[in-house]
Amino acid sequence: MARLTRPQFQQLGIIGCGLIGGSFALAMKRAGLVKRVVGYSKSPSTTELAKKMGVIDVAAESALLAVSGSDIVLIAVPVAATEATLRAIRHLVAPGVLFMDVGSTKADVALAAQRVLGDLAANFVPVHPIAGKEHSGVQHADALLFQGKQVVLTPLPDNDHALVQRAAATWAALGCKVLRMTPENHDAAYAAVSHLPHLLAFAYMQGIMRQPSGREYMELAGSGFRDFTRIAGSDPAIWRDILLANREEVLHQAQRFRMSLDRLEGLLQTQDAPALEALLKPISATRNTWTPVFTNVDDGEPSSKF
Amino acid sequence: MARLTRPQFQQLGIIGCGLIGGSFALAMKRAGLVKRVVGYSKSPSTTELAKKMGVIDVAAESALLAVSGSDIVLIAVPVAATEATLRAIRHLVAPGVLFMDVGSTKADVALAAQRVLGDLAANFVPVHPIAGKEHSGVQHADALLFQGKQVVLTPLPDNDHALVQRAAATWAALGCKVLRMTPENHDAAYAAVSHLPHLLAFAYMQGIMRQPSGREYMELAGSGFRDFTRIAGSDPAIWRDILLANREEVLHQAQRFRMSLDRLEGLLQTQDAPALEALLKPISATRNTWTPVFTNVDDGEPSSKF
Repeated sequence: MARLTRPQFQQLGIIGCGLIGGSFALAMKRAGLVKRVVGYSKSPSTTELAKKMGVIDVAAESALLAVSGSDIVLIAVPVAATEATLRAIRHLVAPGVLFMDVGSTKADVALAAQRVLGDLAANFVPVHPIAGKEHSGVQHADALLFQGKQVVLTPLPDNDHALVQRAAATWAALGCKVLRMTPENHDAAYAAVSHLPHLLAFAYMQGIMRQPSGREYMELAGSGFRDFTRIAGSDPAIWRDILLANREEVLHQAQRFRMSLDRLEGLLQTQDAPALEALLKPISATRNTWTPVFTNVDDGEPSSKF
Repeated sequence: MARLTRPQFQQLGIIGCGLIGGSFALAMKRAGLVKRVVGYSKSPSTTELAKKMGVIDVAAESALLAVSGSDIVLIAVPVAATEATLRAIRHLVAPGVLFMDVGSTKADVALAAQRVLGDLAANFVPVHPIAGKEHSGVQHADALLFQGKQVVLTPLPDNDHALVQRAAATWAALGCKVLRMTPENHDAAYAAVSHLPHLLAFAYMQGIMRQPSGREYMELAGSGFRDFTRIAGSDPAIWRDILLANREEVLHQAQRFRMSLDRLEGLLQTQDAPALEALLKPISATRNTWTPVFTNVDDGEPSSKF
């Protein structure tokens, strides 16, 4: 990190003043990396609230106006709205300006950028900060949201190398551990460690809810249930988009999961106690020695408890 | 609870001086419910340690000797060892003495008790305290382990009513919320809210571990993965026994889960965004409004964080 030059920006344009966009604005100000923040949200009341809270300095009336005059732009809209946002601003995408998104899937964003921006996609660096909170909205924006978290950069083949370095330096200056991988590797990895667990937790909760005694059963549940299902409480619209955007990798991971579940169920059916214990031992051992490399969070939990 | 007479015992016999047996001994002493504790463990060094720690007052050289002279006996051995334990002590099972176990499955224990004890099963009240810790062993025994936790009594049809009341009063005096249900209802409920989540967490972890990039993926994982997989770190021998003992209910719950997973995967395949969101909404809402009725724990986590 030490070799990254500390970047300095004149104006940050935020498109989507929610939890992530708002927190990025506050963090950039706190770190003294930017002089002025211009923000736009689809809902005018959100933009207004962001201004009132001091998250942004100037409220823009359109996405394009938030880009105008900015030398760094963060697109912090739901994954499904990224392409439309890029269309709305493409006339002001110019060399030297760093454009980034924050979506949880990256191959779709990379494709959309190349489709919409063409050669100008060189200025767009796809980013996935592994940070969040249980509650969305600018009212939960937090200047320290990204501190100590992982952030994944998935540069495009056409990206200007200096701009990618600038993006990396920016997140590093906010206290992040910056990783780089291809959009495809990113989506494969997060399908495995984040998107599939969400799918399974949703499916599990529905399986319980749909049975006649489901509600009574849930009243008996303890901390295992609590932790296993926490991510089933995630935002339905956000997860609709993530699961659909990354559906191929998620379905691939689901197939792998089904093979393991088949095997476990088979051992219960045949009552093969030694084989079952032999199967569970390395699983338990692996989980008990797993520790996150960084104090990262996946989807919005304070990272204090491991 | 107020109407339960506070019970008083002369001698508690503990068979299996582990975390649960040891904690029960300490809790009974702390609450002043018993005068003397006699303990037996399969491993003499465990019995010795329990005595050295003051968890038990007298070390017994056999299960039968731990029963001899006791007016309350707790069988705190792994589920799979319950029947053999009952066989070892059946000659000293006598009316007026309260026998209880602490296993996580109850229909198998109820059957074993009826098979081994016959008419004397009237004295045996199957119990499942919903309490534990990540680490087993008498060295982790804790007089407050059961305080504020749920405990489920699954009385047998032949149980002496007064003895069941005495069992309930004992756990209530240790600060537990006492529930009663049939062994079958208990196993159905815990298959749904505890055993199936364990099976799914084990299967999920194995699915990740078995793929070539699995280890690298896990290094990218955050708090969603951490919480979803926590129970995959559970003890392999204990969970081998629980999953096998309750396999019919667990497999039944797994079928229900698979139906929900099929539906979710189908919506990803057809890319039906509105139906997917409509499906996720009540799941998320249900999880976010779920709160445990009591400060119970499932499998060994401090109950402070919800």
